[in-house]
Amino acid sequence: MATNITYHPPHLTRAERTSLRKQPGLTIWLTGLSASGKSTIAVELEHQLLKAHNLSAYRLDGDNIRFGLNKDLGFSEADRNENIRRIAEVAKLFADSNTIAITSFISPYKKDREMARQLHEAPVVGEGEGSGLPFVEVFVDVPVEVAEQRDPKGLYKKAREGVIKEFTGISAPYEAPDRAEIHIKSHEVGVKEAVRQIIEYLEGKGYLGAAIKN
Amino acid sequence: MATNITYHPPHLTRAERTSLRKQPGLTIWLTGLSASGKSTIAVELEHQLLKAHNLSAYRLDGDNIRFGLNKDLGFSEADRNENIRRIAEVAKLFADSNTIAITSFISPYKKDREMARQLHEAPVVGEGEGSGLPFVEVFVDVPVEVAEQRDPKGLYKKAREGVIKEFTGISAPYEAPDRAEIHIKSHEVGVKEAVRQIIEYLEGKGYLGAAIKN
Repeated sequence: MATNITYHPPHLTRAERTSLRKQPGLTIWLTGLSASGKSTIAVELEHQLLKAHNLSAYRLDGDNIRFGLNKDLGFSEADRNENIRRIAEVAKLFADSNTIAITSFISPYKKDREMARQLHEAPVVGEGEGSGLPFVEVFVDVPVEVAEQRDPKGLYKKAREGVIKEFTGISAPYEAPDRAEIHIKSHEVGVKEAVRQIIEYLEGKGYLGAAIKN
Repeated sequence: MATNITYHPPHLTRAERTSLRKQPGLTIWLTGLSASGKSTIAVELEHQLLKAHNLSAYRLDGDNIRFGLNKDLGFSEADRNENIRRIAEVAKLFADSNTIAITSFISPYKKDREMARQLHEAPVVGEGEGSGLPFVEVFVDVPVEVAEQRDPKGLYKKAREGVIKEFTGISAPYEAPDRAEIHIKSHEVGVKEAVRQIIEYLEGKGYLGAAIKN
């Protein structure tokens, strides 16, 4: 009879986990105006990574975050910051678990996206240089007039009427990325082409290389 | 030139995701006193699921939660509740992504663990009965005297000296589960046997069946 737990199994390093999982861990961070097409692109991207590339991928979006983890948060500035902070932390956990996290939130402020990036790219304590996680910022770019015309949820209308205060692109700023890894002009390309551009980028970087293709 | 995004890719249902991923999604929730052996068991369990069973598994524990997602939380009652609530929500996201989430927190209160269970077992809106996620509560049981004797971090000592207030098992209650799926007497069995019991349970339930064995 063992009276104590004396065997201490070793924690997996990131390199060991990657070798076992045969699958990259990274975060694809979509940013853009409401109605820019972020969610549609995220859904198709997840589907293709799972189906055509046999990879583990998972979307974090309003549906599973706003009504779950972040349901205690409102729309004050502090709450909006906290919303993005938690999303960044959870995306990082998914990336660390060797899943491709796909986040789909307006995330209008550079400093918030920079925070998310730093969180990922910082090397793991004790594992040194190169042990950080890739962070791929995707600017889903559309002129605000086009987004307003689409307005599938009627949010721009409510913003114009003043029913929604501080609405990104109308009464609050959207700070466009100037060093996003991928720039998609979603009013010029369809969703399939947008996803093709993202996958091409990931393949070019060698991120999908370790995967077992179907 | 596409002037709008008109193609709407379908969201994956949980059943479709499971079929694509060939891997179960569920949460293994370890609960027990400080120094009961939860973390050691969690590390070994994760390792075996990854290595021997070729599954995606990921630990949520103090190391990656307290210094990340929950670094804004202290030890007030409200903050402790919020700590467990967020862990439960994140575990659910991992389970929903078809990963085996392994949580390793004291989680001393029945109502908190019940909340975590309900969150998982609730059916997905629109997908009906049976679409919930399995929640496996594992009671890592050790007499408080044994835990206090182990005291690898010197926390029991600090609790006895009054330096740490409201320490579970000393100055705050631990509410033992009465319907945990697995009951491990960690002062009677070693870590390998503890993990064997958990894997046996998972296999018995058919949760590991879909995996590709190495």
